[in-house]
Amino acid sequence: MNLTFTPIGIIHSPFKEKFGVPRQPGIAPAARATLELLPPYDRDEALESLAGFSHVWLVFVFHATADQGWHPTVRPPRLGGNARVGVFASRSMFRPNPIGLSVVELAGFGREDGKLVLHLRGADLIDGTPVLDIKPYVPYVDSIPDARGGFAGSAPEARLEVCFTAEAEAQLAVREARHPRLRELIVQVLGADPRPAYREDEPVERIYGMRLLDFDLRWRVEGASAVVVELRTLA
Amino acid sequence: MNLTFTPIGIIHSPFKEKFGVPRQPGIAPAARATLELLPPYDRDEALESLAGFSHVWLVFVFHATADQGWHPTVRPPRLGGNARVGVFASRSMFRPNPIGLSVVELAGFGREDGKLVLHLRGADLIDGTPVLDIKPYVPYVDSIPDARGGFAGSAPEARLEVCFTAEAEAQLAVREARHPRLRELIVQVLGADPRPAYREDEPVERIYGMRLLDFDLRWRVEGASAVVVELRTLA
Repeated sequence: MNLTFTPIGIIHSPFKEKFGVPRQPGIAPAARATLELLPPYDRDEALESLAGFSHVWLVFVFHATADQGWHPTVRPPRLGGNARVGVFASRSMFRPNPIGLSVVELAGFGREDGKLVLHLRGADLIDGTPVLDIKPYVPYVDSIPDARGGFAGSAPEARLEVCFTAEAEAQLAVREARHPRLRELIVQVLGADPRPAYREDEPVERIYGMRLLDFDLRWRVEGASAVVVELRTLA
Repeated sequence: MNLTFTPIGIIHSPFKEKFGVPRQPGIAPAARATLELLPPYDRDEALESLAGFSHVWLVFVFHATADQGWHPTVRPPRLGGNARVGVFASRSMFRPNPIGLSVVELAGFGREDGKLVLHLRGADLIDGTPVLDIKPYVPYVDSIPDARGGFAGSAPEARLEVCFTAEAEAQLAVREARHPRLRELIVQVLGADPRPAYREDEPVERIYGMRLLDFDLRWRVEGASAVVVELRTLA
């Protein structure tokens, strides 16, 4: 049996590539994304009463990696990238059906330039992600605080202190005019240490780069600090 | 863009038709369902480390109603079946993409007669439901007890007292030999009052029927009581 679905909307997000995207929703509350509903699903009535809900589930497609197939086991970053767990015991994007599930905070919604748009906080989604469904978060059903969370039983603790070189600080000041809360966003994203877990052979002076908004964010890691070295304009 | 998925498994459940299925997971903890993984997804390794999680998300297809299309608004039973809310503010099965999401308690898993099977408690799924994905419930991410739940802000309160006529009691005793906890299951299912919300014109003496396991459960409602009148063997 094959089941065919069609996107109801598309995500616009500061995260332009897989590397650097927060590994769970809520890690970077300063990450403001929007969900643009696509015709014929962009009906105002379809969002009637949604304002009463503070959070929504997004059912989406891991489109950037959807053609990479799946394996019965994966190595979650949470376990240092070495131990294997079953794909169904993980939230890995490499799944038999590349469907993702994220709860995000709903900051508002409405018409903008004729488009019906939802504003989301804390999204962990790549720009361009196709969304299959929006469902209200119903706490009396969906919230199970006492559930046992296996190897992901608590939030990850390892966080990096984030600082900026003088040059990066100057570039940040310029960009913050257009992107308020940019410092906060960078601190949250790099603070969660987006580097791959498995990096034993990497030189310590390595410069990491990720595309964020309309620039390349470049940083290195020194001990427990992430040092932002450049916010480089894209060629 | 069309996206095609294939079921990784299928639900075996006591609920054989839409009417009577609990409206949210957890309403009938005595409802024991199984999820049978289908080839090529029935790999033991794919469930490695899942035992550490008490609950899982099931991403499934509302197959029984999948061909009935969608409307921008729906009338949730929660609001008495009269008020309309947007389809994306509801968990209705009549959605643009008929994808469902339920959190269920994982009671165990393993090989049975060569099949890889997960045992689930509190499932609100119809027998034969195709499942697209299993994801671990990660409480530090998924549990947001303070989320605002709109018109579904708290669990429904209206519950019926369930009693059995002498005839039904005798039929129950026979069937309980084969289905332990059957009384509990019936009390939980009927106690939640599965009748359609919109029933103003219905005669009070109406007998309701739903297919449960391998029989027809028949009851009537008197005031705040559901009176089970028969557990009728299917023809």
